[in-house]
Amino acid sequence: MWKQSALTKKLGIDVPIIQAPMAGGPTTPQLVAAVSSAGGLGSLGAGYMSANGLQRAIRDIRELTDRPFAVNLFIPTDFNYDEPVAHDMASFLDTISESPSLKESMTLPNPAAMQKQFEDQLEVVIQEQVPVFSFTFGSLHTDLINQLQGRGTVVVGTATTVEEARTLEQSGVDAVVVQGAEAGGHRGSFLTESSRTDLNTPALIGLMALLPQIADVVRVPIIASGGIMDGRGIAASFVLGAQGVQMGTAFLPTEESGAHPSYKAALFDSKSEDTVVTRAFSGKFARGIQNSFIRQVEGYEGDIPDYPIQNALTRPIRNWASEQAQPDYMSLWAGQALPLVRNLPAAALVSQLIKETDAVFDRMRQS
Amino acid sequence: MWKQSALTKKLGIDVPIIQAPMAGGPTTPQLVAAVSSAGGLGSLGAGYMSANGLQRAIRDIRELTDRPFAVNLFIPTDFNYDEPVAHDMASFLDTISESPSLKESMTLPNPAAMQKQFEDQLEVVIQEQVPVFSFTFGSLHTDLINQLQGRGTVVVGTATTVEEARTLEQSGVDAVVVQGAEAGGHRGSFLTESSRTDLNTPALIGLMALLPQIADVVRVPIIASGGIMDGRGIAASFVLGAQGVQMGTAFLPTEESGAHPSYKAALFDSKSEDTVVTRAFSGKFARGIQNSFIRQVEGYEGDIPDYPIQNALTRPIRNWASEQAQPDYMSLWAGQALPLVRNLPAAALVSQLIKETDAVFDRMRQS
Repeated sequence: MWKQSALTKKLGIDVPIIQAPMAGGPTTPQLVAAVSSAGGLGSLGAGYMSANGLQRAIRDIRELTDRPFAVNLFIPTDFNYDEPVAHDMASFLDTISESPSLKESMTLPNPAAMQKQFEDQLEVVIQEQVPVFSFTFGSLHTDLINQLQGRGTVVVGTATTVEEARTLEQSGVDAVVVQGAEAGGHRGSFLTESSRTDLNTPALIGLMALLPQIADVVRVPIIASGGIMDGRGIAASFVLGAQGVQMGTAFLPTEESGAHPSYKAALFDSKSEDTVVTRAFSGKFARGIQNSFIRQVEGYEGDIPDYPIQNALTRPIRNWASEQAQPDYMSLWAGQALPLVRNLPAAALVSQLIKETDAVFDRMRQS
Repeated sequence: MWKQSALTKKLGIDVPIIQAPMAGGPTTPQLVAAVSSAGGLGSLGAGYMSANGLQRAIRDIRELTDRPFAVNLFIPTDFNYDEPVAHDMASFLDTISESPSLKESMTLPNPAAMQKQFEDQLEVVIQEQVPVFSFTFGSLHTDLINQLQGRGTVVVGTATTVEEARTLEQSGVDAVVVQGAEAGGHRGSFLTESSRTDLNTPALIGLMALLPQIADVVRVPIIASGGIMDGRGIAASFVLGAQGVQMGTAFLPTEESGAHPSYKAALFDSKSEDTVVTRAFSGKFARGIQNSFIRQVEGYEGDIPDYPIQNALTRPIRNWASEQAQPDYMSLWAGQALPLVRNLPAAALVSQLIKETDAVFDRMRQS
C-alpha cells in the first residue's frame, strides 16, 4: 500500500500527503489543522513569524487538532548588506505603484537580527515540542537536529539537487523534501553550483529527473514536491522513488487557506507558462504568476538586493496590494500545475486525493 | 499491459519506447535500426540533412531493419535576417577559439532557402513512404498531414505547452510528443506566450505538471519526453497519462550513436545542474552541458542572431571542436537526468528498459 511506509510511521500520519508550508499568510492554523485532522500532515509556514506569533499559531493549531503537524522555518543565509543598493531599489519601488512611500520608514534587516529571529523561532519549536520541524534554504547543525529529535520532533530538510539531499542526510535529518523545478514559491536551493553561478540561475531540475537520482543515493525517506496536484502526480512520485508528497498550490484555494481572494482567483485564471522564477519580490528566486510588479522589477536597471532586504523593501507594496485587492502587485506564488487546482475545502481535497491515488494504483494492479 | 496501446498499434511497434531524433550526428542509421529491431521506434534526426543525404540514410536504415522507424524534420520558422548582427557575432566568434576564421567563407541561410530545404526534405519523406514522420518547431498544414497519412505515414508533432498540444491535435496529427523542461537539445516551443515574451524565456514546464494537463484535453496518444532514463521514468510517464516515451540522452552513449567520444564522456561526468538552456549554439533555446563556449557567448554584449543564422555561424567552431576532440566548444545537448546514463549497446538498453518497466508494474501489482 502506498499509504503506509517508514515515512508515515515516523510522522505518525495516516496518508503521506503533506500540505506545504507557505509562509506569509496562506497556512492558517485552520488549514494546518484541517489537513492533519484529515489524516495528512499540515505545515505552518512560519519563516516570517515572530517568536510570539509562532507560539500563538502553534497553540491555535493544537486547539483545533490533536494530530501531528509541522512547523517550517527559513535557515538564515549570508547576504550582502548593501545600503546604497537598497536605497536605489526603494526609490525605484516608490515610482512603480500608488503604494505609500517606503523611504522614510525603512529599516533594513541585518544579518545579526535575522540570526536572532531564527534562534527565537527555533526556541519556540523546541519548547513547544512541535511534532514535525521542516526547514528550507539551508542545512542545520547535527547537534541542533539531535536536540530536536531528543524532544520527539521529526526533522525534515529541503533539497533541490542530489548534493543538497546528500548534505541533509549526512546532517541527520529524518526525511528530505525533494523540490522540483515545477514548485511554486521560494526555491530551497542552498549549495552554490560553482559551474554555473556566472549565469545567476538557480538549480531548476524537474522531478522526473531529480527524484530517481535522489532515491538512488539517499536512504532516509524522500518526499516529492512541485507540480503535484492529483492522484496521478502522487502515484507517479511513488513510482519515481518517493514515500510521500508535499503539495502547496493545491491547498491555496481552500476555504481554510489565508491566501487573498484575488490570489485565489488568479490561480483559476492562469496557465503553466504564466509562472516565472524571479527574485523581484524577495531577493531569492521563487516561482509565481507573472504580473506587472515582476515585469517592472525585472526591467529595473540596477541590482536587486539580496534576500531578506528586497523582501523587506517590497513588503509595504505587497501589504498595500492586499488592502487594495490589487493582484498585479501581490506575490502570486504558484507551481507549474496550477491549471489543475480545484475548489474544495481542505479535508475534502485530502479525501479526494486519497481516492484518486487508490484508483491509479488499482488500475495498475488490474493492467 | 503498458506495452500495448492505441499508440503501439498505430506505430506498429512492440514496446512504446521511442529513441528521440537528435539532429546533427547522434542518430546514425545503425542506432535507428538497432532500436527499431529491438521492438522500439528509432528516429532519424534529419533536420540538418540535405534531401540526398536524407534519402541515403533512409535507405541505409531499410537495409538494416524491416521494422518501422521515424524521420524527424524541423518546421521552418520565421527569423530575423539581420546581416550586421550576424557579422558582429561572426567577429566575436573569431575571437573566442582557435577555430579557423569564418568571415571569408560565411554564407548566411535565408528564409527562402530554409523553406526550400524543408520542402525537399519532406518530398523525400513522402516519396520514401517513411513509416513515421515526426516534426519539431511548429505545426504542419492539415493538407500535408493528410497527404502523408494517405501514403501510410503516421504523423507525430511536438508540444511544450497545453496550447501547442491542442493546436497539433486540431491539425490532424496521430500522436503528440510532450516535451518537458527536463529534455535535452532544442526546445520544440512554437507558440509565443504573449504574457512573458518580454522576459525572453522559453516555456519550461516539467513533465510532472505538463503531462496530466495535456492528457486531460488531447484525445490522440501522448508521448512523454524529457528526463526519462529508466523503468521508473517510463512507468511514471504512463501513470501521468502518456502511452509512450521518447528518450534521447539515454541513447547517446550507445556504441551505435554517432555522438563524439568526448561528448559521450562528458555525459558520464556531469550533474543535472550542469545543464543549461541557451541560445548560444543555434539561436534557438536548447538544453546542454554548460561549457566554455556557452559561457563566452552568454557573456557577449551584442545580440545572438536568430536560428538558423547563429547555427550556421557556429558550425565551423563545432566542426573544429569535433576534429580537435575539444568538448568545451561542442554542443553537448543533454537532458536533466544525464547522471542516470548507462553504457550499453542500443538493443541491450531497450531490453533493460522493458525489464525495468515490467518490474515497476509488477511491484505495484503486488503492493
